[in-house]
Amino acid sequence: MSETREMLGRMVGSITALAQPRAERRANRLARLLATLISERGEASGAVMARRAVALYKGLDEAGRRHFFDLLARDFSPNPREVLSAAEAYYKAPTPANLAFLQFVSEPPRQEVFRRMNMAPGGTETLVSLRTALLKELKAHPEYVVIDHDLQHLLGSWFNRGFLELRRIDWNTPAAILEKLIQYEAVHAIQGFPDLKRRLAADRRCFGFFHPALPDDPLIFVEVAFTDELPSAVAPILSLDSAIGDPRRARCAIFYSITNCQEGLRGISFGNFLIKQVAADLQAELPNLRIFATLSPVPGFMKWLTRRVGERQAWADDTTRQAVSGLLTRQGLPPPESSERVDQLLAWYLTREWESGHSRDPVARFHLGNGARLERINRAADLSTKGVAQSLGFMVNYLYDLSDVEANHEAYVNDHKVAASGVVERAARAAESLWAEPDTEKSRGR
Amino acid sequence: MSETREMLGRMVGSITALAQPRAERRANRLARLLATLISERGEASGAVMARRAVALYKGLDEAGRRHFFDLLARDFSPNPREVLSAAEAYYKAPTPANLAFLQFVSEPPRQEVFRRMNMAPGGTETLVSLRTALLKELKAHPEYVVIDHDLQHLLGSWFNRGFLELRRIDWNTPAAILEKLIQYEAVHAIQGFPDLKRRLAADRRCFGFFHPALPDDPLIFVEVAFTDELPSAVAPILSLDSAIGDPRRARCAIFYSITNCQEGLRGISFGNFLIKQVAADLQAELPNLRIFATLSPVPGFMKWLTRRVGERQAWADDTTRQAVSGLLTRQGLPPPESSERVDQLLAWYLTREWESGHSRDPVARFHLGNGARLERINRAADLSTKGVAQSLGFMVNYLYDLSDVEANHEAYVNDHKVAASGVVERAARAAESLWAEPDTEKSRGR
Amino acid sequence: MSETREMLGRMVGSITALAQPRAERRANRLARLLATLISERGEASGAVMARRAVALYKGLDEAGRRHFFDLLARDFSPNPREVLSAAEAYYKAPTPANLAFLQFVSEPPRQEVFRRMNMAPGGTETLVSLRTALLKELKAHPEYVVIDHDLQHLLGSWFNRGFLELRRIDWNTPAAILEKLIQYEAVHAIQGFPDLKRRLAADRRCFGFFHPALPDDPLIFVEVAFTDELPSAVAPILSLDSAIGDPRRARCAIFYSITNCQEGLRGISFGNFLIKQVAADLQAELPNLRIFATLSPVPGFMKWLTRRVGERQAWADDTTRQAVSGLLTRQGLPPPESSERVDQLLAWYLTREWESGHSRDPVARFHLGNGARLERINRAADLSTKGVAQSLGFMVNYLYDLSDVEANHEAYVNDHKVAASGVVERAARAAESLWAEPDTEKSRGR
Amino acid sequence: MSETREMLGRMVGSITALAQPRAERRANRLARLLATLISERGEASGAVMARRAVALYKGLDEAGRRHFFDLLARDFSPNPREVLSAAEAYYKAPTPANLAFLQFVSEPPRQEVFRRMNMAPGGTETLVSLRTALLKELKAHPEYVVIDHDLQHLLGSWFNRGFLELRRIDWNTPAAILEKLIQYEAVHAIQGFPDLKRRLAADRRCFGFFHPALPDDPLIFVEVAFTDELPSAVAPILSLDSAIGDPRRARCAIFYSITNCQEGLRGISFGNFLIKQVAADLQAELPNLRIFATLSPVPGFMKWLTRRVGERQAWADDTTRQAVSGLLTRQGLPPPESSERVDQLLAWYLTREWESGHSRDPVARFHLGNGARLERINRAADLSTKGVAQSLGFMVNYLYDLSDVEANHEAYVNDHKVAASGVVERAARAAESLWAEPDTEKSRGR
Repeated sequence: MSETREMLGRMVGSITALAQPRAERRANRLARLLATLISERGEASGAVMARRAVALYKGLDEAGRRHFFDLLARDFSPNPREVLSAAEAYYKAPTPANLAFLQFVSEPPRQEVFRRMNMAPGGTETLVSLRTALLKELKAHPEYVVIDHDLQHLLGSWFNRGFLELRRIDWNTPAAILEKLIQYEAVHAIQGFPDLKRRLAADRRCFGFFHPALPDDPLIFVEVAFTDELPSAVAPILSLDSAIGDPRRARCAIFYSITNCQEGLRGISFGNFLIKQVAADLQAELPNLRIFATLSPVPGFMKWLTRRVGERQAWADDTTRQAVSGLLTRQGLPPPESSERVDQLLAWYLTREWESGHSRDPVARFHLGNGARLERINRAADLSTKGVAQSLGFMVNYLYDLSDVEANHEAYVNDHKVAASGVVERAARAAESLWAEPDTEKSRGR
Repeated sequence: MSETREMLGRMVGSITALAQPRAERRANRLARLLATLISERGEASGAVMARRAVALYKGLDEAGRRHFFDLLARDFSPNPREVLSAAEAYYKAPTPANLAFLQFVSEPPRQEVFRRMNMAPGGTETLVSLRTALLKELKAHPEYVVIDHDLQHLLGSWFNRGFLELRRIDWNTPAAILEKLIQYEAVHAIQGFPDLKRRLAADRRCFGFFHPALPDDPLIFVEVAFTDELPSAVAPILSLDSAIGDPRRARCAIFYSITNCQEGLRGISFGNFLIKQVAADLQAELPNLRIFATLSPVPGFMKWLTRRVGERQAWADDTTRQAVSGLLTRQGLPPPESSERVDQLLAWYLTREWESGHSRDPVARFHLGNGARLERINRAADLSTKGVAQSLGFMVNYLYDLSDVEANHEAYVNDHKVAASGVVERAARAAESLWAEPDTEKSRGR
Repeated sequence: MSETREMLGRMVGSITALAQPRAERRANRLARLLATLISERGEASGAVMARRAVALYKGLDEAGRRHFFDLLARDFSPNPREVLSAAEAYYKAPTPANLAFLQFVSEPPRQEVFRRMNMAPGGTETLVSLRTALLKELKAHPEYVVIDHDLQHLLGSWFNRGFLELRRIDWNTPAAILEKLIQYEAVHAIQGFPDLKRRLAADRRCFGFFHPALPDDPLIFVEVAFTDELPSAVAPILSLDSAIGDPRRARCAIFYSITNCQEGLRGISFGNFLIKQVAADLQAELPNLRIFATLSPVPGFMKWLTRRVGERQAWADDTTRQAVSGLLTRQGLPPPESSERVDQLLAWYLTREWESGHSRDPVARFHLGNGARLERINRAADLSTKGVAQSLGFMVNYLYDLSDVEANHEAYVNDHKVAASGVVERAARAAESLWAEPDTEKSRGR
Repeated sequence: MSETREMLGRMVGSITALAQPRAERRANRLARLLATLISERGEASGAVMARRAVALYKGLDEAGRRHFFDLLARDFSPNPREVLSAAEAYYKAPTPANLAFLQFVSEPPRQEVFRRMNMAPGGTETLVSLRTALLKELKAHPEYVVIDHDLQHLLGSWFNRGFLELRRIDWNTPAAILEKLIQYEAVHAIQGFPDLKRRLAADRRCFGFFHPALPDDPLIFVEVAFTDELPSAVAPILSLDSAIGDPRRARCAIFYSITNCQEGLRGISFGNFLIKQVAADLQAELPNLRIFATLSPVPGFMKWLTRRVGERQAWADDTTRQAVSGLLTRQGLPPPESSERVDQLLAWYLTREWESGHSRDPVARFHLGNGARLERINRAADLSTKGVAQSLGFMVNYLYDLSDVEANHEAYVNDHKVAASGVVERAARAAESLWAEPDTEKSRGR
């Protein structure tokens, strides 16, 4: 029908098997099969062929996968000439037929390839792992980005919030799923099943999003602790020996760990939905809850500070720079007399430092982008090696006030303004005296 | 960012509420909300806004829906100028970035609208029913086809075989689902629960595809009867009084009714997958089964014959024409002496009559397109009023031989050749003498 | 070990198969198998033998069953001499060992027989149906009462409330279970699935007790309607056309039908637990509910009245007797001028007529024994043929006030006093003038 | 009605609360409540009172429980005089009525007490734990055996095989249940979740019996390994590093660990049913399996040998005795030159040593009583400290040949003859020369 399809038809023949290494031959065979699969011939035995394609893909080694990616990137893109002619027709006459044809020729045939592979049993899982493999190659092979673009588009559509199931995870959850939480946990490592059991006790909650096509594998999960007050340190929450409290009396629900599980779904956002849904559900179950907040790390603080210290001209004076510099070489918590200064630097870092229109710190970017408010800075809050190395042991609380999130989010997106409590805002302002000049605007990176 | 998005931004303002009727005002409000939802502003409270959009849509009356479709068709299509410029850039330099931009501007914003609406609870169901409503308007409003195109594209991707669950339906199935079978059944009407119960007894099977987002509503279902021989009439299968046989002894699995349930999923094909999956599963459960076949109506036969009789010059001679014409006016089964002639006409109709590259008969189109073989023509097989009116009481068997379906399908698609048994093929050839001239080629409509 | 067991050992040999009819031979074979099963030899292959015994029992025809019951009644009872000697030993020295031996010899070996049969798949179901068959024979064979006594004892223990599961039944319940409700319903017949569907709508509830060994078969179920006021007629509740109300606004939960499903569990009481559990659960779900009551038939009224009219000397005078007699021959609702008299007779019947220490009316016996209060008498409340024949169309409300049921129950059991509202009590007193003499005491049948 | 009941009536009053310690007062209150509960008064509010009784029991401390047991043993037994008179009546006239009355008065009212307590939520669990507590007191308070007798009778009836559910346990089982396996495992201790995971891998199986009233708590479980040959050592089975085999190719299913979980169900036998059911199910799933056998410890061997060595006159001569004695003091595996002698002693111990009509070794008693055959003695099969201490590291295989178990069981029960392979039988005979005289008969303990 279209040139693209014809081209694919020719390709089926042209990818010949002359003196190719084994890995290449297999990748070629797979590509030919996929080209057939998306042609009309593939319809009657689509299920059988999809199964075969998935099996072939799984049998590829690293070299075979790379060759396969090469073919996917090269041979399954829209035909530029065909696209141009369709665009001209649509420009001249934006009729439904011209629009339909435009859409047909400008959608990369790769997308149909992936839709067909998805029909096989285990297809979705295979595509998620295919993208995981692809993302690893992306640095060395930037040309694969076209494949990634198609995969992300499809997976984003398939893992639409409307298809996700929110499940509570507790000690009655199958061990096969609990084991995955232990593997995936990215914020505060879980030390085996006994540690996990404490995190699933009566005064805790854990919720995850699941997709029907990956029923035993969470996409994202959040761990919640119920507390009386906004917590200022993570150790009491992680302690195995703490007494189990009564959730009906708690005032605060603290999101102390959020983990995205599937590398192959990178860039597809679940966390925003998860936190707000969990907050709403917990509020309905436990009407005594007044505060929904996080206890969060500041993973990028020290990295940023190190770079800044290197920039001589950034600082108000050398004394200041050297004082800050001292913090970096200390390898431990800051001395008491420096705590206030670190407060200020941290407040500045989280409220004034921007990168491509977003907060520079990845955790801040997530919560502030969701419309949370930066509520409090906590000293000596995470004494783990990682905590001290990342942020001198400091942690922060982001507060989710559901009646404010929309306004906060808009201020963040449109005005690059961070919602922060009075204390934090004052600390950020105090930090201005440390710099050579007010560089707010510049740092926003617009 | 892109012009399209900017245009939408302006639109939010421009759809004003001056002196509009109530239905229009509501449709406008919905369209504005959706435009906001797909802008960046919609991110933080996407779930809330999606919920509101779904509620607003559900509140529209017929006039409101039509106005809403007008807006969707007019304001949420790609911008022709933007598309052209992206196509030119991609033509000059087919880089990943240019490809990405091309895809972005050539995808109608409607698709994002639907993806966002899907995030609300009940979103998928709403979109399926939105398409049902849309299809009803399509004849009067052909311009809505652009909306339908986007919906079908998305729904086709979301109802991908990989996401469907095959479920056996039996007397232990919830009544709420069984009730739907009674409502939906399109081939041999089910007369209430007792009738349905017989169709779910031990010597029958019923299977359906379900989607996780519509867990209590089948997408398609097939009814199977186990028999000793290829059946030549449907009454024994539909009889409530028949003895219940032992499925382990049966040789034949007969697909005697297949129903697509969701008008809103029209054009998204499930039947091919369903039949082949069910055949494979039954073979594994009951190794004695040797034959997988249908007992099928020929719904288009009389309609076609009537039209043909009207064409004087089509017939070998007037006597023939009048003889055939007599069958049409008779209102009952053909007399015994005419049976052979009807066999021939039917064989011709099913094997030689084509329309836009497909069998003219809709049921034949489905099974022959799946790669089945037209095995046998049965006289006096369906004595119901509908059966006599549609096809003079004739029914046919299509045979699914899994080792042949791929070859049959290819012959059907590529050569417009129907796989038929010797008997049927001979009958079709005998029919050639009835016509004025061999018009095989012409009737294929190529 | 004990003589009883030895006796059984001998029996295994002595039940010989000389010239017996086929049915007897089978029953004998079963009895021998069971005697083996409860001997030590049966242990290793207990499961196999139990399965065989159940199959043998199921294969018996009526004559075979009767012969089998003969053997069960005759050969599986305790040995009187052995019992006497154990009782003497226990009387002389009530030691644990003597008590244990007493229990061992005084428990009929039949009980162990049934416990062993229960081990087979479907065993419990078989025993329930065995008892159903036994109860049918009991009138003709009063000697079988010893078997029934053992079965009732065991089934009573096995169907202990602690093992029952309360399940809500609604339109999502499997059709196989709903079909049973239609079969079993004993109060207001259900006219097929559409009728049942109305009874399971949002403003209704249906709950049943299930036992894990009969997972698809309710033991008892109750139907509840939510109403604004205490209802005085059943037709509006049974109507298929009534609008579906909002249960959250209802003030009254009306138990309008309670059915015991399993004849084989006769005499094992579930209704008391069911009503109170359902009332407690509904109160928790719907805090607006203020009144839990029934709308109940008075099935024994006309039968009693007919007998009473026959007793000339019972009545204050012949005029009264003839007036009452006129009601009986009328075959329809009583004329308006008689309604008050019927009220009085009904109030008398339900509050003053006793039989073996219980209310004479079976429905009254159940609710009053549960501690309910007789709240109101309703004229023209059930216009069905059955309703008019049983009780001249009258129905009554029993009220469950959970804070009073214990006191009401004690007054009923200990003082033979019925809890009744003032109106009902006054009507009962007014009835005294109809009788020849106050015969309250006599009628209580003590 | 009966004297027993009247006695209980009086008791309700007589258990007075004069100057009693708090624990006694609570126990008294509970006993009074239970006496009321089984009287007629308890009927209307049986569920409420049962709930209260369970709560009261749970609130008792150890002293309170003892006092409660005192009351249960003393006041809830049958009345000897009443029993005697009922037995005399039944002896004179064994009528149904006399039998019914005999049963009524000879059943301890304790049984009704427990049946009533069982009606409360969590009742069954409470009774199982009540018996656990009771069994602990039994040594110090042998008079409690009457309570235990009643509890065992009831629990035995309630946990009848027909009510148990066989469930496969694997890595998809809830962690809360898996954790219990780790706690309960009595044969080869499980070292946490990773160890358990290996035992649940694809080449293993684990099955347990569950009761509907204790849905999350196994009653018994068995662990099965699939192997090519009858295994001669347990370490390869327990190793975490072993490769995971393909169960479809295995010839042997080895039951290497069986654990009864509930101390409160002691004496109620599940293992026999479990092994045979699992064997039958595995055979159906994996038709290649040829051998069902155990790899079992011999827990009583060293204890028996130590005692025997102490008996000088038992041995053929002092040299023999001293040689055997040397094995006991060695604390390690026997030296190679002694292995054959240990084989013989073990064969003798397992086939010739009896106690009260059963094999002396508890594991042998179980498997031989089930009808298994002692197939092989394995040297150096369990090198764990426990294994060496119990049986010098020896283990044995018991073989379950389903076609022989009934005959083996009968020979075991009736003739005290152990089914053993030729090799084992020869070893046992060779052991005769070690003893002073052939004492086979004596050791059978008849």
